[in-house]
Amino acid sequence: MKYCFGVDIGGTFIKLGLFTTEGELLDKWEIKTRREDSSSHILPDIADALLGKIKEKGIEKGDVAGIGFGTPGPVTEDGVAVCPANLDWVNKPVAKELSDLTGLPCRGGNDVNVAGLGEMWRGGAKGYKNAVVVPIGTGVGAAIIVNGKVIIGATGAAGEIGHIHVDNEIKEACGCGAVGCVEQFSSATGLVRMAKKMLIETDRKTLLRDADEVTAKAVVDAAKAGDKAADEIFDKFCDYLGYSFAATAAVIDPEIFIIGGGVSKAGQVLVDRVQTYFKKYVWPGRRDVKFALAELGNDAGIYGAASMVIGIEK
Amino acid sequence: MKYCFGVDIGGTFIKLGLFTTEGELLDKWEIKTRREDSSSHILPDIADALLGKIKEKGIEKGDVAGIGFGTPGPVTEDGVAVCPANLDWVNKPVAKELSDLTGLPCRGGNDVNVAGLGEMWRGGAKGYKNAVVVPIGTGVGAAIIVNGKVIIGATGAAGEIGHIHVDNEIKEACGCGAVGCVEQFSSATGLVRMAKKMLIETDRKTLLRDADEVTAKAVVDAAKAGDKAADEIFDKFCDYLGYSFAATAAVIDPEIFIIGGGVSKAGQVLVDRVQTYFKKYVWPGRRDVKFALAELGNDAGIYGAASMVIGIEK
Repeated sequence: MKYCFGVDIGGTFIKLGLFTTEGELLDKWEIKTRREDSSSHILPDIADALLGKIKEKGIEKGDVAGIGFGTPGPVTEDGVAVCPANLDWVNKPVAKELSDLTGLPCRGGNDVNVAGLGEMWRGGAKGYKNAVVVPIGTGVGAAIIVNGKVIIGATGAAGEIGHIHVDNEIKEACGCGAVGCVEQFSSATGLVRMAKKMLIETDRKTLLRDADEVTAKAVVDAAKAGDKAADEIFDKFCDYLGYSFAATAAVIDPEIFIIGGGVSKAGQVLVDRVQTYFKKYVWPGRRDVKFALAELGNDAGIYGAASMVIGIEK
Repeated sequence: MKYCFGVDIGGTFIKLGLFTTEGELLDKWEIKTRREDSSSHILPDIADALLGKIKEKGIEKGDVAGIGFGTPGPVTEDGVAVCPANLDWVNKPVAKELSDLTGLPCRGGNDVNVAGLGEMWRGGAKGYKNAVVVPIGTGVGAAIIVNGKVIIGATGAAGEIGHIHVDNEIKEACGCGAVGCVEQFSSATGLVRMAKKMLIETDRKTLLRDADEVTAKAVVDAAKAGDKAADEIFDKFCDYLGYSFAATAAVIDPEIFIIGGGVSKAGQVLVDRVQTYFKKYVWPGRRDVKFALAELGNDAGIYGAASMVIGIEK
């Protein structure tokens, strides 16, 4: 077996990748997610794209191990997408339908978990068997990898570390309905929320008052430039995230935390500050857990999806 | 295969059990842990006891699936006890030596994890594949069971939920070296510590002033009797424990928490209060996680140890 495909199904675009089974990315491209007609075009579109690529590259179909995919929300062992956000599917048997359409084996998982597998296969967690991969964007989730496999949990909700309770002062509710979740502070949304609140409720001098738009990047950049008000916000972000990592380390004892997602563009300064708070809160037995940045960026999903079909039986 | 043995190796006594492979306890007994001569008598003593039992019962050795054991501290996959507390062993190949001495296959694990397996096999977690079994005694640990298997973690330290940081006011250090761990409040030791502190630092009226000795049981009994000062201590115990369970649920998404150990003798009142705090802190998606008391008491270890050798290949 020489090739495999990875497909990352999002609400706006679908990312596709052709890989060798050794993990070399040979080609990647995107197609639009056509959500009209109850999202019924999505899987035929993916099948057409993959079969077209096989033809274009002159690949023997027998040399393709299969197709891996990731979607938002829970995905069962059999590759049924339960209720992916931004897609009009309920209990969609993605693996079965995509396999029927292409004649290739198919497996899938939740997009956060699949991206974690990608980082473990060829990214920041390469060589580790016990890792926690945390993409930080609008929200905070985690792929919990134990002995080389992602833990899904009893209801597909393992890794919801963004909803560990950390704050007793905030009054607004989190998207999940609780009040005081990590995600309300330690996400792109959290940075913007805290910054806007500070701008409205105080008259502190800060670079953020001159920003065209208060974005997560603007807050991080201002903090890096020595802006005290912005740094306090960035510090709270890192404090609560470090705390949630410390609790996670007590529960599952990983070797490494990998920070990814849009906010990870802040770079090593983010990793260092989160790790400092992690060491403050974690019990001494696990103070030496490693920290690193994710390496695959937006490609982590296609890498991880592709890795799921290696060694699959036809 | 009809029979199996479970052995729970503690610092003072060794508990032994003869089981059918269906999980029926046929016989149990204890022998003293002879720690003289660098604990070198312990494994020969166990071998003698088990071989004697086989003879006594007229069992064919070929009908015994094997011997499972539990010891404190980390135990490797190969059954090496790394540094069991109260035993003078370092990297002791317990499985290999016990197998050589008896001619029977042998497997083992950490005592907390093994007791968790016991509760899953024949106790409070029976029928569940994703459970957290938490013995509460001197300290607080947890067996984290995912898909029917105990998670050990990268360094054998998974399930250390008693060392999640929860308190910023306490000044004394936990046994682990950190300050503010769950275990400093939500354990038998924690109840006694909080009660003694209250007795010394306040002049509150409380039944505990008349107690012969301030024990965990005395605190729980006083709380049950309506003693307000004792109830506040019991409440803090439940609050922090419920919090640590909520964080654990966010990380690994279990179906059920099973509370065991000496303090679980407090009964349903304990389970109910911990669950109330759990619901306060956990994110809405997992508010329906079940709670129950452990059922096997001090026998959980021998049950779980015995369960490890079922299906083992000779």
